[in-house]
Amino acid sequence: MKAINSLDHLIESLRCLPGVGPKSAQRIAYYLLQRDRDGAAALAAALMQSLETLRHCQRCNTLTEADICERCLSPQRDASLLCVVESPVDMNMMEQTLAYSGLYYVLMGRLSPLDGVGPRELSLERVLARASDGVVKELILATNFTNEGEATAHYLSEGARARGLSVTRIARGVPVGGELEYVDPGTLAQAVRERRSLA
Amino acid sequence: MKAINSLDHLIESLRCLPGVGPKSAQRIAYYLLQRDRDGAAALAAALMQSLETLRHCQRCNTLTEADICERCLSPQRDASLLCVVESPVDMNMMEQTLAYSGLYYVLMGRLSPLDGVGPRELSLERVLARASDGVVKELILATNFTNEGEATAHYLSEGARARGLSVTRIARGVPVGGELEYVDPGTLAQAVRERRSLA
Ligand SMILES: [Zn+2]
Ligand SMILES: [Zn+2]
Repeated sequence: MKAINSLDHLIESLRCLPGVGPKSAQRIAYYLLQRDRDGAAALAAALMQSLETLRHCQRCNTLTEADICERCLSPQRDASLLCVVESPVDMNMMEQTLAYSGLYYVLMGRLSPLDGVGPRELSLERVLARASDGVVKELILATNFTNEGEATAHYLSEGARARGLSVTRIARGVPVGGELEYVDPGTLAQAVRERRSLA
Repeated sequence: MKAINSLDHLIESLRCLPGVGPKSAQRIAYYLLQRDRDGAAALAAALMQSLETLRHCQRCNTLTEADICERCLSPQRDASLLCVVESPVDMNMMEQTLAYSGLYYVLMGRLSPLDGVGPRELSLERVLARASDGVVKELILATNFTNEGEATAHYLSEGARARGLSVTRIARGVPVGGELEYVDPGTLAQAVRERRSLA
């Protein structure tokens, strides 16, 4: 039954993709095998290479191939500003605005008690420790304006204040309930410029 | 810039998946790297194994690891019946009905002139040649009841008649415009039992 197993195994493996159920896994498998074998081979190689080489930056927590990412090492960046975002996608969005030249901390998530993600799982103490290095003058909270993103910002602002750190929140130019990823760079640039003090 | 390249390369590679644009590719990449590295590794391995081992069965054209698949070699199957389906998914659906014990021919597609898929690209002559082996007594057309599936069935029925072959079409228990893949096995079983002669 080896003939069936190789294909079934691929179909089963495709279900690791978010939102892919048994039917779509089957369709994707046949699509790749019939129409895009080169693409499938490239995907397999890219997955393996990424898994092998990518880890978290020791300073900003984003995915990188080095111990400390290029952005964190760049003398071009203003080390007195530390911007907290939920994901690398959000960091890329911030970069595209050209409105920010400080450093980042990438949470790789947000507070989500229902999913078992608390301050500890997100290592929020690590963010506050990072912001307390004596160089950072302002902690800018750029988590999403969703309930979970707001809760995350709230937790961090409380912790920052308790440590006497100056903390700001990007302006609500981002629509309420919206996610940074789907906002145009102009709106996001405005939101950065109009960030308000939470002290 | 190697740090950026490995991740960007993965994001780009994920776009070989049907329906995945730049934004979803980014989300899938981060999801896999953060939440399901084991799944991603298994997927990479399954993709490579499938690409290496799967090819088309010389008799029925489905994907298999052997020259001729197990079903085509099975003495259990009734070799006087040859059922034409569009895809391996459809063949699996037929099998689940338990209403059919003959052999198959899997087109791996359907006539679709707008996409440049004509009788030649689908190798429809090969289907007719397969049905003319002297053993096949009935060619059962089980392509979808979409416009393209119907056109494919029409082409094959004309060719079969020209060769003096007996040809039937599964009954329209399958809803008009519907696809086999989304029909319950009971309905499909009925459609097989009530297949009608096209001669
Ligand atoms: Zn970094
Ligand atoms: Zn076969």
